[in-house]
Amino acid sequence: MFFASDNWAGAHPRIAESLAREATGYAAAYGTSDLDRRMEERFNDLFQREVAVFFVGTGTAANSLALASVAKPGGVTFCHSEAHVTADECGAPEFLTGACRLVPVHGPGGKMDRDALTAAIGRFPPGAVHQGRPMAVTITQATEPGTVYTLDEIEAIGTIARENDLPLHMDGARFANALVALETTPADMTWKRGVDILSFGATKNGCWCAEAIIFLRPELAREMPFIRKRSAQLFSKTRFISAQFEAYFEDGLWLDLARNANAMADRLRTGIGGSAKSRLAWSTTTNEVFAVLTKDAAERAEAKGARFYDWPIPAETPDLLQENEMLIRLVTSFATTEEDVDRFVEFLA
Amino acid sequence: MFFASDNWAGAHPRIAESLAREATGYAAAYGTSDLDRRMEERFNDLFQREVAVFFVGTGTAANSLALASVAKPGGVTFCHSEAHVTADECGAPEFLTGACRLVPVHGPGGKMDRDALTAAIGRFPPGAVHQGRPMAVTITQATEPGTVYTLDEIEAIGTIARENDLPLHMDGARFANALVALETTPADMTWKRGVDILSFGATKNGCWCAEAIIFLRPELAREMPFIRKRSAQLFSKTRFISAQFEAYFEDGLWLDLARNANAMADRLRTGIGGSAKSRLAWSTTTNEVFAVLTKDAAERAEAKGARFYDWPIPAETPDLLQENEMLIRLVTSFATTEEDVDRFVEFLA
Amino acid sequence: MFFASDNWAGAHPRIAESLAREATGYAAAYGTSDLDRRMEERFNDLFQREVAVFFVGTGTAANSLALASVAKPGGVTFCHSEAHVTADECGAPEFLTGACRLVPVHGPGGKMDRDALTAAIGRFPPGAVHQGRPMAVTITQATEPGTVYTLDEIEAIGTIARENDLPLHMDGARFANALVALETTPADMTWKRGVDILSFGATKNGCWCAEAIIFLRPELAREMPFIRKRSAQLFSKTRFISAQFEAYFEDGLWLDLARNANAMADRLRTGIGGSAKSRLAWSTTTNEVFAVLTKDAAERAEAKGARFYDWPIPAETPDLLQENEMLIRLVTSFATTEEDVDRFVEFLA
Amino acid sequence: MFFASDNWAGAHPRIAESLAREATGYAAAYGTSDLDRRMEERFNDLFQREVAVFFVGTGTAANSLALASVAKPGGVTFCHSEAHVTADECGAPEFLTGACRLVPVHGPGGKMDRDALTAAIGRFPPGAVHQGRPMAVTITQATEPGTVYTLDEIEAIGTIARENDLPLHMDGARFANALVALETTPADMTWKRGVDILSFGATKNGCWCAEAIIFLRPELAREMPFIRKRSAQLFSKTRFISAQFEAYFEDGLWLDLARNANAMADRLRTGIGGSAKSRLAWSTTTNEVFAVLTKDAAERAEAKGARFYDWPIPAETPDLLQENEMLIRLVTSFATTEEDVDRFVEFLA
Repeated sequence: MFFASDNWAGAHPRIAESLAREATGYAAAYGTSDLDRRMEERFNDLFQREVAVFFVGTGTAANSLALASVAKPGGVTFCHSEAHVTADECGAPEFLTGACRLVPVHGPGGKMDRDALTAAIGRFPPGAVHQGRPMAVTITQATEPGTVYTLDEIEAIGTIARENDLPLHMDGARFANALVALETTPADMTWKRGVDILSFGATKNGCWCAEAIIFLRPELAREMPFIRKRSAQLFSKTRFISAQFEAYFEDGLWLDLARNANAMADRLRTGIGGSAKSRLAWSTTTNEVFAVLTKDAAERAEAKGARFYDWPIPAETPDLLQENEMLIRLVTSFATTEEDVDRFVEFLA
Repeated sequence: MFFASDNWAGAHPRIAESLAREATGYAAAYGTSDLDRRMEERFNDLFQREVAVFFVGTGTAANSLALASVAKPGGVTFCHSEAHVTADECGAPEFLTGACRLVPVHGPGGKMDRDALTAAIGRFPPGAVHQGRPMAVTITQATEPGTVYTLDEIEAIGTIARENDLPLHMDGARFANALVALETTPADMTWKRGVDILSFGATKNGCWCAEAIIFLRPELAREMPFIRKRSAQLFSKTRFISAQFEAYFEDGLWLDLARNANAMADRLRTGIGGSAKSRLAWSTTTNEVFAVLTKDAAERAEAKGARFYDWPIPAETPDLLQENEMLIRLVTSFATTEEDVDRFVEFLA
Repeated sequence: MFFASDNWAGAHPRIAESLAREATGYAAAYGTSDLDRRMEERFNDLFQREVAVFFVGTGTAANSLALASVAKPGGVTFCHSEAHVTADECGAPEFLTGACRLVPVHGPGGKMDRDALTAAIGRFPPGAVHQGRPMAVTITQATEPGTVYTLDEIEAIGTIARENDLPLHMDGARFANALVALETTPADMTWKRGVDILSFGATKNGCWCAEAIIFLRPELAREMPFIRKRSAQLFSKTRFISAQFEAYFEDGLWLDLARNANAMADRLRTGIGGSAKSRLAWSTTTNEVFAVLTKDAAERAEAKGARFYDWPIPAETPDLLQENEMLIRLVTSFATTEEDVDRFVEFLA
Repeated sequence: MFFASDNWAGAHPRIAESLAREATGYAAAYGTSDLDRRMEERFNDLFQREVAVFFVGTGTAANSLALASVAKPGGVTFCHSEAHVTADECGAPEFLTGACRLVPVHGPGGKMDRDALTAAIGRFPPGAVHQGRPMAVTITQATEPGTVYTLDEIEAIGTIARENDLPLHMDGARFANALVALETTPADMTWKRGVDILSFGATKNGCWCAEAIIFLRPELAREMPFIRKRSAQLFSKTRFISAQFEAYFEDGLWLDLARNANAMADRLRTGIGGSAKSRLAWSTTTNEVFAVLTKDAAERAEAKGARFYDWPIPAETPDLLQENEMLIRLVTSFATTEEDVDRFVEFLA
């Protein structure tokens, strides 16, 4: 009953096996081995076009260096006000872009409101040096509060970005979960809708440590080799990342893992919605579930070994809770089982 | 016959097994799991005192964030003019310290000359704002050109650092190789000789990706949690690093691996020294060998599959080569075998 | 009728005379001349305590380096959402603090709401590395939209800051205007109410270029000599700043200049309030006036030589304007005359 | 007898008068006034081509932002090992370029040796990410130790820079002194010899505070408006800089001032060379004189009011001094008189 976060699960056995398999023998370092090259091509296939791929060690690094690749003096990036980049990365995007800023844009369900985005961009008249200048837009797919942008919604943001000559970045720490929720393809969820740069996260979905920055417009990647190295994100034995990706993609493992996580979240949603002692705080579609529980029920569940996080009440729903209630976040993962879910739901009965 | 670098070898099978073993089950993220804690204590034992431990992903990160922990506005760090931090890290130490500078200090064999260090520090009179001000001294053990500082030499540098109120950092990317070469203990090679902060590298010696910043004076680590996170070096599934260290230290594996690398380098040194077509360019004691070969011999070796790097002629020995000779670097590793060495030496016969 | 900004006025003749008077003779450079020292003491008198004084060249530098003096890795500063530091300095505070962030706090009239500030600080639980950590609070006195914090309001913010162990910075680009509006003393408007660091601006009030960072708690200034020099804000012939301050303070010139600016703004407020073709958009008390004009009246005024800026409609009053109206900002200065004001008001008749 | 530095002199009376003259009336702020525009055109005339001009407050700012305009991730700039940028600016060039590095290149007389420069550039093979990559070359004219590059020497450096696709920057803190020493024109000493960006210093030569970055290839200036603003170097009342330049250039004042400084240095050189108690430490051609004095003579001069700095013995001439001798630097300025010089020389008699 570990619902604290998808990064509490370890690695999928097939990932671990791949690491063991690739451990022996010699290979060129710093991303130049045959396996590294093969994985780069694998991403081309996946995205149905030539992309530029840069492995890094953490999701924070992926987001920060993606933005660093389009940084300018005085540059600002528009993100949702609750986005991971602005709320949970300790200023790494600012630090690693050389102090570019993040401008928060509001919107319900963790998704940027288009009008709010347009208005936010509009506050930076071209050439006005005092305000600084737009350099990028970033969205999160799936979002922090567990929703997904529909393809049309992505396209709408993409259109605004393109009209303002701004590259669009997608934080895909839970890319696979969104992908299977929308039953679409990587190409359809990204460049076909206007996404230019993607943080492709695999760590939360069954890898140990495997993140990639995917440039869907490879010409944006020109500075990246140096950006990555001077940010200390160029790994010597890069094949340890490639080996994870190799197993991750083989036979669609990654999609299966995401489908399991989402299905277990569905099961949780059903169980919570059908219980008298709990309800869904808001609707989600991926592997995150936000639930209002009576404090009694929550305590009992914890006492029995359930792990989850208390969650702050969103500013837009200040009256979400009644007395003796609390808001919690439950995250499922590739490793979550039906038994985990069912045992938890029992405590709510 | 892969002598290009010790990072061309993969991971030791026991490291890979450990990763497989720890892959299942849930564990708290971001360095707070039981295994993470246990590994921190393991470092206490290893260094015979309480230390503060911070895992990071690359050696460049370890060095850069170690220096960031003692950074000051206008700060300069004294390093050997050929040190990895200044020659091979693409400015990451400068970038990740917020633009602190590295001041090169000369000295034979990749080791800082004490008088040159004292003179370099002396060029920064206290309070003189224009020059900036000293903030740290850093040495590399083993050095880039394959030598080691003796314990007395470390202590001499440590004394200069302490007299000038400067923390002393050691880049230990090849710490184990130096340790077994000197037949000493981690405590004796570090804090007992004045070292305050250590980049403890395990990647080159048989891990996939396992680096730790060890604060031998833990009070210097106060800012590190934030420094590490905002530099995108806090891994979510940290146990993948801990699991590597667990196997690395078990039954002294790490020392065995370093001993093998050094022994194979010895064998190479003997072979090269005894050949008519080659000679040692300078004396080394760890797992790096610098050899002068006839171009013929080098080409033949390469044609047969040997891998090594051409090396630039050091400035202080401009006349090192005769016509038709070249300088190469050979690096052995935990994976190097006697057969590898003997086959290579044959080409020099 | 130049109401575009107070920085469109030149320098007061007594400032220019002082520069001419101090131009001859030799003096030690970089802030060590007798005149520089004398001016530092002048600030001690002014603030009725020992302060540390650092001259810099621009208000943006004063704000940015003040924050840099209390910067920490992962640090965030709380400011009003419309504050100059976040809206008009092109990211200089972020850049010059080494990428520390600004967190916007809302509140009416350009003044931080106390509860909103407390809530904003509360979102950074101590030790939580992902969010970053509070490092300072900054307020603007007088504010961007022309209001002033009362002494009690400053004290309330100061109390919150102190309770959270955060230094309180005041952006005093229009310090003198606020001071005379409140009829108080520098000490009463700053350290007696909890302000620790002040950007003391004189440029807008009749100097050419004279800004000072005043550390009301001098122990916070320890790193400043190096912070200022490495930010390229240490002037060689510093006496050109000191000479401006000398005249600025002599016989209370600075207060007279601010009183004139405020009085002229009062006259404008009266004229605009009494006109059928205009009204005050909101109440202000210093040298800024925000007026709603019919477009006709505005155009006529401009055609006759009046200079002012269009102003964006504040988010909290979306229905401020009726058809054919516009919002403008008018700023008076030490140089504004009654004739200027009266001619302008005529156009509104 | 103030020979400590040329920045101990104040401002020339005509500069001060110009500031008084321009003090009244209104003018657009932030570099957009008529006077600002006129001064920009003045620079076009001066350099016989269209240039882009950016006023900043200090020489350190000029150098740092000039380099920032051509900065790249991992970028290094080649400078003389004693250059002001690396020895006297407290890391500002590194800080304001976002942590780009300076690589020292040796050469006699403060001038880069061409072969050493070529060799230094050669250590950065194209595409090699570990070393970083060249981004600029910078020379100082006149140099720190008082010499000047001949036009041919500038051209030789310019050729190396162009062959390596590197912009060439010139630190012209003492541009005028070099110009009159060479009896040449601004165009001939810069872009006609391969200089792309110039720090044009006027402060040391009779202004209060007037520095300009001149882009001789204006296309390199694209990012400068934002670079300057976010570095807090955009002055609101910019005309205070323009007003200084107006007087500085009028009737060739700037050349007359530099000629006086150089002539007074010549007089010093003659006096020192002809004295038994002193000798020239090395040959200089501008307004700096380096002299070896007996300690007796130096003390007597100081007792009588002479001001100068002790100077460190250059590394390449360790045996410069005999017992009871010291090395001092004497700097003349626009304000130095024959009487000053003659009185000083008397003490050496």
